[in-house]
Amino acid sequence: MSGNSFGTLYCVTSFGESHGPALGGVVDGCPPGLELSAADLQKELDRRKPGTSRHVTQRRESDTVELLSGVHEGRTTGTAIGFLIRNEDQRSKDYAAIAEKFRPGHADYTYWMKYGLRDPRGGGRASARETVVRVAAGAIARKWLQQRYGVVIRGYMAQLGPKKIPFVSWDAVRGNAFFAPNAAMVPELEAYMDGLRESGDSVGARINVVAENVPPGWGEPVYGRLDADLAAAMMSINAVKGVEIGAGFAAVEQMGSEHGDEMTPQGFLSNNNGGVLGGISTGQDLAVSIALKPTSSIRIPRRSIDAAGNAVEVQTTGRHDPCVGIRATPIAEAMLACVLMDHALRHRAQNADVQPPTRAIPGKVA
Amino acid sequence: MSGNSFGTLYCVTSFGESHGPALGGVVDGCPPGLELSAADLQKELDRRKPGTSRHVTQRRESDTVELLSGVHEGRTTGTAIGFLIRNEDQRSKDYAAIAEKFRPGHADYTYWMKYGLRDPRGGGRASARETVVRVAAGAIARKWLQQRYGVVIRGYMAQLGPKKIPFVSWDAVRGNAFFAPNAAMVPELEAYMDGLRESGDSVGARINVVAENVPPGWGEPVYGRLDADLAAAMMSINAVKGVEIGAGFAAVEQMGSEHGDEMTPQGFLSNNNGGVLGGISTGQDLAVSIALKPTSSIRIPRRSIDAAGNAVEVQTTGRHDPCVGIRATPIAEAMLACVLMDHALRHRAQNADVQPPTRAIPGKVA
Amino acid sequence: MSGNSFGTLYCVTSFGESHGPALGGVVDGCPPGLELSAADLQKELDRRKPGTSRHVTQRRESDTVELLSGVHEGRTTGTAIGFLIRNEDQRSKDYAAIAEKFRPGHADYTYWMKYGLRDPRGGGRASARETVVRVAAGAIARKWLQQRYGVVIRGYMAQLGPKKIPFVSWDAVRGNAFFAPNAAMVPELEAYMDGLRESGDSVGARINVVAENVPPGWGEPVYGRLDADLAAAMMSINAVKGVEIGAGFAAVEQMGSEHGDEMTPQGFLSNNNGGVLGGISTGQDLAVSIALKPTSSIRIPRRSIDAAGNAVEVQTTGRHDPCVGIRATPIAEAMLACVLMDHALRHRAQNADVQPPTRAIPGKVA
Amino acid sequence: MSGNSFGTLYCVTSFGESHGPALGGVVDGCPPGLELSAADLQKELDRRKPGTSRHVTQRRESDTVELLSGVHEGRTTGTAIGFLIRNEDQRSKDYAAIAEKFRPGHADYTYWMKYGLRDPRGGGRASARETVVRVAAGAIARKWLQQRYGVVIRGYMAQLGPKKIPFVSWDAVRGNAFFAPNAAMVPELEAYMDGLRESGDSVGARINVVAENVPPGWGEPVYGRLDADLAAAMMSINAVKGVEIGAGFAAVEQMGSEHGDEMTPQGFLSNNNGGVLGGISTGQDLAVSIALKPTSSIRIPRRSIDAAGNAVEVQTTGRHDPCVGIRATPIAEAMLACVLMDHALRHRAQNADVQPPTRAIPGKVA
Repeated sequence: MSGNSFGTLYCVTSFGESHGPALGGVVDGCPPGLELSAADLQKELDRRKPGTSRHVTQRRESDTVELLSGVHEGRTTGTAIGFLIRNEDQRSKDYAAIAEKFRPGHADYTYWMKYGLRDPRGGGRASARETVVRVAAGAIARKWLQQRYGVVIRGYMAQLGPKKIPFVSWDAVRGNAFFAPNAAMVPELEAYMDGLRESGDSVGARINVVAENVPPGWGEPVYGRLDADLAAAMMSINAVKGVEIGAGFAAVEQMGSEHGDEMTPQGFLSNNNGGVLGGISTGQDLAVSIALKPTSSIRIPRRSIDAAGNAVEVQTTGRHDPCVGIRATPIAEAMLACVLMDHALRHRAQNADVQPPTRAIPGKVA
Repeated sequence: MSGNSFGTLYCVTSFGESHGPALGGVVDGCPPGLELSAADLQKELDRRKPGTSRHVTQRRESDTVELLSGVHEGRTTGTAIGFLIRNEDQRSKDYAAIAEKFRPGHADYTYWMKYGLRDPRGGGRASARETVVRVAAGAIARKWLQQRYGVVIRGYMAQLGPKKIPFVSWDAVRGNAFFAPNAAMVPELEAYMDGLRESGDSVGARINVVAENVPPGWGEPVYGRLDADLAAAMMSINAVKGVEIGAGFAAVEQMGSEHGDEMTPQGFLSNNNGGVLGGISTGQDLAVSIALKPTSSIRIPRRSIDAAGNAVEVQTTGRHDPCVGIRATPIAEAMLACVLMDHALRHRAQNADVQPPTRAIPGKVA
Repeated sequence: MSGNSFGTLYCVTSFGESHGPALGGVVDGCPPGLELSAADLQKELDRRKPGTSRHVTQRRESDTVELLSGVHEGRTTGTAIGFLIRNEDQRSKDYAAIAEKFRPGHADYTYWMKYGLRDPRGGGRASARETVVRVAAGAIARKWLQQRYGVVIRGYMAQLGPKKIPFVSWDAVRGNAFFAPNAAMVPELEAYMDGLRESGDSVGARINVVAENVPPGWGEPVYGRLDADLAAAMMSINAVKGVEIGAGFAAVEQMGSEHGDEMTPQGFLSNNNGGVLGGISTGQDLAVSIALKPTSSIRIPRRSIDAAGNAVEVQTTGRHDPCVGIRATPIAEAMLACVLMDHALRHRAQNADVQPPTRAIPGKVA
Repeated sequence: MSGNSFGTLYCVTSFGESHGPALGGVVDGCPPGLELSAADLQKELDRRKPGTSRHVTQRRESDTVELLSGVHEGRTTGTAIGFLIRNEDQRSKDYAAIAEKFRPGHADYTYWMKYGLRDPRGGGRASARETVVRVAAGAIARKWLQQRYGVVIRGYMAQLGPKKIPFVSWDAVRGNAFFAPNAAMVPELEAYMDGLRESGDSVGARINVVAENVPPGWGEPVYGRLDADLAAAMMSINAVKGVEIGAGFAAVEQMGSEHGDEMTPQGFLSNNNGGVLGGISTGQDLAVSIALKPTSSIRIPRRSIDAAGNAVEVQTTGRHDPCVGIRATPIAEAMLACVLMDHALRHRAQNADVQPPTRAIPGKVA
């Protein structure tokens, strides 16, 4: 448990560097009998692939996944699922200039201080390219959750820098490179990004993810709370600096009479709790919101130090996402899927014999 | 690992219900040789004790801790440290009225749905009274971190409902029941709480916690990030709905040229990252902010259902904190201490032989 | 996970020293709804209690257990079950003589070298008195396994020093202080022990434990094998130096045509595998055998060193079991119960939806 | 933690089937700065490779390992080390005959009952081919332990079926395909194996492994004992049915005055404890012995059932090791290395600041 695995029963282990031979992962604990092929993983990987619009890194990676184990005759066997994604378009020479310098806001300095050495090419292990593993693992979880419980996991960009994006429809999300739930705003977002790229700067974003049809009862009390595991999973995504469940920070200014979601036999009347009470799912929509910081690799020159401790100026000219949030939606969805699947398994381990004494009320009044 | 333990190497296990015989815990992994007595734990427990002002629950608990193991002749032996806090002032009859009803916004319903039964007295296992265990475990971690690395952990209330509390000084924090860093605002906070109590309602709060003198290098990349573990630890505190590291959600609107903290040989020039880059500590102040929701047990009548699924009205007349945030500062400090200590041990396990190739720069320019 | 917890889903955490205030434990992960009272634990604790015959330590401990949490109105609630056993008859002065010396064959030296200090009173944390926690935790597991799956767990002494004890009946086991399955041999065992006590020496023993009615399918392949977890659990019992599953070391000399248990629709024809194939239960009796070494605390003088590294002579005059194996049967049963329960939960987490494609064949031909 | 990972801080995750595209693994937690190349792993893999003599399976596998991550410019970076070994010589048609039948003594039946389906080709996940991953992971641990602490890990075959092999020298081990420590006996072993192969039967073996120069203090008390973790690691190796530490089962008949290893300032006078007391290393040779059962895939016809539950006869004609013990020595060494490395890291996490109060005495009197 040295940082590269997560999950108790649906356990994901990851390896690989941005400019090494490959990235890959192992998913342990998937129930047997699930129909699964490389195409199931590929479909999700294609959603986060670089180079799909001018607003993201122009690195050319097909992100082709190879399934190496755990599947026989098209079905999971219950054993470990290994998979591999070869790196294809490394331009490590781009990094010669920064190999001995630390980019402000980047993990360059902390890896160096922790380990005494680092792989500087493309951010090495700290690269957001590692998220391919999360997306692949999440694709398996998502499929199982959907088939077994009807859980639907979706996300969207809620804000791009200063631009708040009001939610219009899930259909809109699929129609643009930003995962924006609002087709009308896309030209404005594109213009904003074009300006940003020109300026050599970067910007943050807010992503919302939602899981529908989560049964009540998932999550463990006290430290193993569903929302605690979600917070860790989300905060572990590169560039994330904040996590909210339900009302999140807005709860600070709410009164109890406003925040506490009233219940009726016909369903919950509101969802300030975001689908979790006492660390356990309520049956309402599970609602998570995350803040992503702006990319630290920018063209604008900045003050920093080098490996010898001297003052230097740093300017990053490689290929980078000017807003990592643009490709973050499938990643956050994947993490949500993995955590939910882990808790689905944990819940039935302990509570498979429980007959809920009350019929669950609907997540919301129809 | 069924929800009641956390930490990989500094591992805390907790048990107990609000109205059961006792709460207690086991701390496993503490280095040997640390001077430790029950008084070290008591000091911190007294900071979160109920009944210390009219603004918190009037339950009378001395919260006296008994050390049961792991200490010999005043020093930790390296073996498991068990401790116990007896409950003294249970008024379980207060709960007869709600035993068969679910308080809106409370874990009543989710425990019932998960386990098929629950201990309704005082919230049972879901009670915030469980946090005594965290505070006791945190007291040990805090002492070791202070002695071994000079780490100082402190927190304060940054906002009480609508009242933002500008930071004035750490001295101010010690002088009032709110942990407010601003003596001048205390009368205003007291008046606000008096009104709130009268109205039978409750309100949320924001707490900030900071660790100073954390060496660079603590935290593991990818999933075992220091900030990911902090996010889980904080989100696992009762009533927490949001966690931020450093700039947090403000990072959404920041540009990379603003957010990325510049470095000089004399130190970092800003701390938007909150002391963590790539999941690893930078040597800057580790800055965490959390949102606590308003208490769900309020006197104002609310719509709900009962155990049979029928519509009912719920009104809670027991003794409750009208703002759980008021007593949350020592709890958040304790969780921060536990996570840091866990990562201090994990770091040196792997990296004890590393000679950092560069002298660490100061956390901030003096 | 620093040594004092075991189990993935049925997780037992232990604390306490031989001469400290108390020993205790936390059982996390027990399914809700199990009828449970302190009496269920007490019944098993009484089976391992000291002082029940002249052949074991004469320390007077009632080993009275107090249930502290996790049970409400006589049923488990699914939350952590804390329990406590106060020490009553510590004679710590007995240990003054050896506080600065290391008994040959004892953990005195290794604790000292690992931690730089130790609690020498009664062996401190290394005392076999810690096994009360295992027995208490095992009592809960045993009850659940019996009620949920009809699993029956029993053990017996198979050898006392040079005396092999042929199995006659389970009834015989209950009728003597040795857990010997053979009433006719008891006088011989008693005479042997009387002679041993007089000589001031100690001796080893072999204990066999068996679980009947274990369903096929429990255990995880590769590293999480049921037999691997059993081996760890058994080897973790004080004084155990060897573990066998099924034929054990006899398998070295067996031919494949003899060892491989043939199967028929009416059942397995033999049980050399001991109920586990590929790390997964077969449905046959799960058969485990362990070797316990002789107690290291003996009256016969022995060469050793003291804390300053000087040569000394050590002679132990406190109260000790001259054969720890005599009280080991309930302990080994408890560990078997805990491991089985953990794997029962782990199995259904992943495989609750599996419909075994073949009807299981009986464990043995009727 | 669903069966395919082991280790707390030096954590090995494994995937792959005998006839799938590849086997591979991830080693997490290796300290940074260790010189490492694929050749380090290959050297050990070549020692367990099939086809190196007529006494083992004739499957032709080069077992070429590819390092995928965690190494930069010839040194470990502290991040996850991924590696891959492609399968080359699968003859899956050999298994058509047994796809619907269960070999007696094999995991065929238990996988089928657990998961409801299985990959029958070459034993699928239950194949001993999985041990390539252990050997690769062990090669890294072995190198680090040797460089950092001077630990030397070696093993040998102590018994082949009925043939006990008295230890002569470590040099002898390297000179024959059996890892027999006794050159004079090799012709006898070869003749025995030739006869066995002709008969179509298989046989068991005993392997001893030893670690020299292990410092005192490694291992955690109670459940996390060094010997408990070793027992699990060894029992998790395919075909292992018994594990002994030091005197092992011989301790049953020993007296305390014989078993308890006396100590002098010049060193320990004997090593019945096998290098572990109270779960913690003593500084003596760590001595482990394991029993391997005979291969279950034999040519001799045996009674069994098929997937429909009908009585059938099974005869295995594929390529198999008639004694899996012959290739087991490097595997047992690898498991010993991994467990030791895990405990080396765990020990220094907690106890890096301990100054052992006494100089360690030598493991044996010179």
